[in-house]
Amino acid sequence: MYKRLTFIMFSIFFVLFTSVSFVMAGHGKGKADKEKVAIVLASFGTTVPSAVKSIINIQDEIKRAFPGVPVKITFTSNIIRSIWKKRRADAKKWLNKGIPNEVLYVKNIIATIGDLVENGYKNIVVQPTHIFFMEQAQDLKSYIDALNSIKTTKEKWMPFNKLVMGRPALGMPGDKYNYHEDMEKALKTVSDDVNLAKNKDAMLVYMGHGNEHWSTGIYLEAQKMMRKLYPDVVTFIGSVEGFPGIDDLTGHMGYSKSKNIVLKPFMIVAGDHATNDMAGDEKDSWKSILSKEGFKVFPVLKGLGSNDKFADIFVKHIKDAARDGGIELINH
Amino acid sequence: MYKRLTFIMFSIFFVLFTSVSFVMAGHGKGKADKEKVAIVLASFGTTVPSAVKSIINIQDEIKRAFPGVPVKITFTSNIIRSIWKKRRADAKKWLNKGIPNEVLYVKNIIATIGDLVENGYKNIVVQPTHIFFMEQAQDLKSYIDALNSIKTTKEKWMPFNKLVMGRPALGMPGDKYNYHEDMEKALKTVSDDVNLAKNKDAMLVYMGHGNEHWSTGIYLEAQKMMRKLYPDVVTFIGSVEGFPGIDDLTGHMGYSKSKNIVLKPFMIVAGDHATNDMAGDEKDSWKSILSKEGFKVFPVLKGLGSNDKFADIFVKHIKDAARDGGIELINH
Amino acid sequence: MYKRLTFIMFSIFFVLFTSVSFVMAGHGKGKADKEKVAIVLASFGTTVPSAVKSIINIQDEIKRAFPGVPVKITFTSNIIRSIWKKRRADAKKWLNKGIPNEVLYVKNIIATIGDLVENGYKNIVVQPTHIFFMEQAQDLKSYIDALNSIKTTKEKWMPFNKLVMGRPALGMPGDKYNYHEDMEKALKTVSDDVNLAKNKDAMLVYMGHGNEHWSTGIYLEAQKMMRKLYPDVVTFIGSVEGFPGIDDLTGHMGYSKSKNIVLKPFMIVAGDHATNDMAGDEKDSWKSILSKEGFKVFPVLKGLGSNDKFADIFVKHIKDAARDGGIELINH
Amino acid sequence: MYKRLTFIMFSIFFVLFTSVSFVMAGHGKGKADKEKVAIVLASFGTTVPSAVKSIINIQDEIKRAFPGVPVKITFTSNIIRSIWKKRRADAKKWLNKGIPNEVLYVKNIIATIGDLVENGYKNIVVQPTHIFFMEQAQDLKSYIDALNSIKTTKEKWMPFNKLVMGRPALGMPGDKYNYHEDMEKALKTVSDDVNLAKNKDAMLVYMGHGNEHWSTGIYLEAQKMMRKLYPDVVTFIGSVEGFPGIDDLTGHMGYSKSKNIVLKPFMIVAGDHATNDMAGDEKDSWKSILSKEGFKVFPVLKGLGSNDKFADIFVKHIKDAARDGGIELINH
Repeated sequence: MYKRLTFIMFSIFFVLFTSVSFVMAGHGKGKADKEKVAIVLASFGTTVPSAVKSIINIQDEIKRAFPGVPVKITFTSNIIRSIWKKRRADAKKWLNKGIPNEVLYVKNIIATIGDLVENGYKNIVVQPTHIFFMEQAQDLKSYIDALNSIKTTKEKWMPFNKLVMGRPALGMPGDKYNYHEDMEKALKTVSDDVNLAKNKDAMLVYMGHGNEHWSTGIYLEAQKMMRKLYPDVVTFIGSVEGFPGIDDLTGHMGYSKSKNIVLKPFMIVAGDHATNDMAGDEKDSWKSILSKEGFKVFPVLKGLGSNDKFADIFVKHIKDAARDGGIELINH
Repeated sequence: MYKRLTFIMFSIFFVLFTSVSFVMAGHGKGKADKEKVAIVLASFGTTVPSAVKSIINIQDEIKRAFPGVPVKITFTSNIIRSIWKKRRADAKKWLNKGIPNEVLYVKNIIATIGDLVENGYKNIVVQPTHIFFMEQAQDLKSYIDALNSIKTTKEKWMPFNKLVMGRPALGMPGDKYNYHEDMEKALKTVSDDVNLAKNKDAMLVYMGHGNEHWSTGIYLEAQKMMRKLYPDVVTFIGSVEGFPGIDDLTGHMGYSKSKNIVLKPFMIVAGDHATNDMAGDEKDSWKSILSKEGFKVFPVLKGLGSNDKFADIFVKHIKDAARDGGIELINH
Repeated sequence: MYKRLTFIMFSIFFVLFTSVSFVMAGHGKGKADKEKVAIVLASFGTTVPSAVKSIINIQDEIKRAFPGVPVKITFTSNIIRSIWKKRRADAKKWLNKGIPNEVLYVKNIIATIGDLVENGYKNIVVQPTHIFFMEQAQDLKSYIDALNSIKTTKEKWMPFNKLVMGRPALGMPGDKYNYHEDMEKALKTVSDDVNLAKNKDAMLVYMGHGNEHWSTGIYLEAQKMMRKLYPDVVTFIGSVEGFPGIDDLTGHMGYSKSKNIVLKPFMIVAGDHATNDMAGDEKDSWKSILSKEGFKVFPVLKGLGSNDKFADIFVKHIKDAARDGGIELINH
Repeated sequence: MYKRLTFIMFSIFFVLFTSVSFVMAGHGKGKADKEKVAIVLASFGTTVPSAVKSIINIQDEIKRAFPGVPVKITFTSNIIRSIWKKRRADAKKWLNKGIPNEVLYVKNIIATIGDLVENGYKNIVVQPTHIFFMEQAQDLKSYIDALNSIKTTKEKWMPFNKLVMGRPALGMPGDKYNYHEDMEKALKTVSDDVNLAKNKDAMLVYMGHGNEHWSTGIYLEAQKMMRKLYPDVVTFIGSVEGFPGIDDLTGHMGYSKSKNIVLKPFMIVAGDHATNDMAGDEKDSWKSILSKEGFKVFPVLKGLGSNDKFADIFVKHIKDAARDGGIELINH
């Protein structure tokens, strides 16, 4: 009982500390406020504690790049947020596992932005950590567009001075940024994965997330780019949900002379999908399927977010979005 | 020091309690969630502790009318919220004065709605306590319209099932609800004020808030309605800011044979304006000006929100907005 | 029959000519197009041929001010447009009365803007001729805001470079332009009306349009401003629909020693309302009512749009809107 | 000269006839109007006269399905519309080639919808003829969403009762309609193409339009579906612009034992791309490239729009959109 109370107090101080530091950061008046800038890092999210680290790693990279600019985390997946909400009933357990307070108490994008506005941040860059521009990024964009359509009678009461959104890791539709180039830049950051495969005389097989409701054909474009960038290693990119599934890939794998496979998630985090669907012992995991096909499989449980060079893509995309929106990423 | 710690713990438990009860209320799953409903009471706000009571009175009326439906408070005035934010540094003092936690920690409309969404409320009725549809209500409407324009790829992830806004006390432009009738219904609730004036053989002078940036000519329409509804008492309605100011009214007051004046705020709360601009001792207060003109002035420091019959208008407008939006105001 | 054919051909050439000249004006390519600017003059409209002249007069003033910039006319009243649509069956009759082709074939704001876009105009200033910012201007603003929310994937295909709206004659809510000052500037242009009243030793009574669905109290603010600007003449401003009606005014007129009244529409055109409700012989016309009250009434059937100085207000408001929106009002 | 005049008169009557019939159809009043429905067929467009037929064929199918409902044509490509605009200077030539008046005078989507509103159509279904949901459909959706955000003060003056958009031939993102199923249904309509290839002992190679600014990986999903539906014939689907290009395909073609290729556009029309990029004699046309690779190529210059079964997909999608939007596709 006593311990529990201690813990509650501990976690309360934690909350307070966060709030207070927020209020502190929130000082500054009038005209200055118009210039205060914050970043929101919008992840799909994960429920796996070890996977949270990949997100925090990206957050750290961004904080290092823009010292003094708060970087708030939101999860765009409603299901994942609802799991964390339930976990709050046993908060101590999760905080003890090293889960940051802001993850345990993670909020949706509306509330996250509302809280920033309340604390005087009128310039906000929302940066998704999504790989491609699909459902999650599209929905996020709809939130940002909607919030941007608020028009107060007097300009001085506008909730935002500038509210902008960066593009996903491998780009987005449109001609502002060529997605082929974005894809190339992003895939150049995974040379370590390729080298690992090379050293093991292996093919590199990436497992993307995918989905059944938005064409995932872009995975094949990424696969083509991988092979162009790294001709020494045969790379395959499939997805858990949607096309191309593992069955679409295995037929082609036979053509390779290599019998080894380095298997890695093509996702920001090595979460549920990586642990179970990719590297699990169930017979329908990719590891099991590929093993059964006669390959020696080396699963790597590490999300792309843990790759600093990959994480830096988001720093770059934040810079682009800020520059395009006329936001200076400094708080005086 | 010890006392301070006790207090901090107390206020922390307060916060936790609020959060926890929120989480509790947040239970229920899937389809049920789609039906969960909450109300947001959007006041201009006040910094005067005694005036807060008028807002709480309206909140209580609404809670009584819709048991089981959470009624969250937001203040639409950025300046007033920023004052409460500073006061949080001395939270104990304000909570001890009876300021509810949700007022001390009041948030803007975006964050308030974001928090409700986070807690599973997908049906939300936002009810302004504004008197007329002017800048504050127009801006609030812009927020609601903007949030309503969010469109997720899949319908099931839409943040709102129904998000609607009720009309101010004395109506709004358009033909959905005739503002003349709204005005009449609202003014019928102030018969006690008229009777007070009658008993004192006095004119009734209301001080509205007004502003310089949106025509306030509607005060004169309200004045005309008052005289029609209560022919026995001469009523004047002026405004602190904008037209008609006290100078526009005094010229006409001479025509009345009464030399007494009951002076009351035509605002939800008897806050700063009522205390100082209306009933203060400074020579430019309405009390001083009217006294100098030779009238005996009886100021009444009570907001319209403290009048239960007036408060019930908001209950009615919530019912109308919910019905029009297809929202059932019950949580099962 | 022959004459009818001749006429049809005539009117057809008329249409063609308009179209062709449009196409001509539409020349210019690529980058140049981005700079092409047009003005839309958005009137409530009128069905009275002689009243059309007031609108054309405003159009002429604007054309003179911005040579080379097309000034298209639209009517915001759906009812009035539908009457002109019926009249097209008897086009000759109306064209013979001097009705311009663009009035007989007037279109709604969506089609008018769509046609301009089709002809390469990507910079558009929409200028209402409405007196106050009420239902008509609010609705127009909603159209403009909506069209402005179109976002194409590539910026080069955006339908508009800049699409902006000027404010009504007597201003609009907000702090961008002080409506008191707008009102003052506008009312300074009606000195001829005041002088006419003065010469006739008369009061000046204006009939505004008004409505029952949006507070019209601003008429009283305008009346107050008139009396401040022109203390020598007693001015009343009432409205056909809504407050203050003629009944609200007559009570006060008795206090004036003048027994003469100059009666004029406080509208852009002297149309149906002016001819019938104001100056008609029916016993409920203002002329009849005021005559019955013992006044000698001098009706003036001239809209404010025929007053060049008043028309110039719209030129000024177009300039303001263009400057605020970064539009240069020149076509090279 | 005389002939030219005759022609002008002819074309004028044509215009008049269209307008008049429009006005006729526009009759009916008040409440009835609320129910009047029209369809807009939004094609990318084409500048090749023979290709126009494929669009007209779709229009005819739709007209047959919904007798009494006007089906207006718009082209979403600004470049293609601008070419038709120039051709109007030589209108006779194009009309003589059988180009329908509504194609020669084709307007953008804003003007097209504005004209329908002007003629009393308050229920509008916009049906793209685009193959996939990419840039063109996304932009069209933005126009529709924007127009839908217009809110007039009074509901009766809303420009639209219902304005909805159908999905492209092979579906769109989201869970309302499963795009895999849409794809399957659409590809089941091309069995004639497969049979032609079979009879010629050929592979079937489709040329899609594609683009460089929006992932076109969905072509590979369609290719996979083709092979699943028609296992007897090897189908390839590539695109003029973007991935997979002809170079991405040729490498795989060698694995097929067939040395014949039926080459067909995977586009609504057999326009410029089909004539030149696909079947032209230039050495970089697909025909030339594939011939050089040793294949015997049979080009088929027929758009998918000329395939009645394919055209019927749009009828189906119009029905779905109307039903979802609560529109009855009948004019009484």
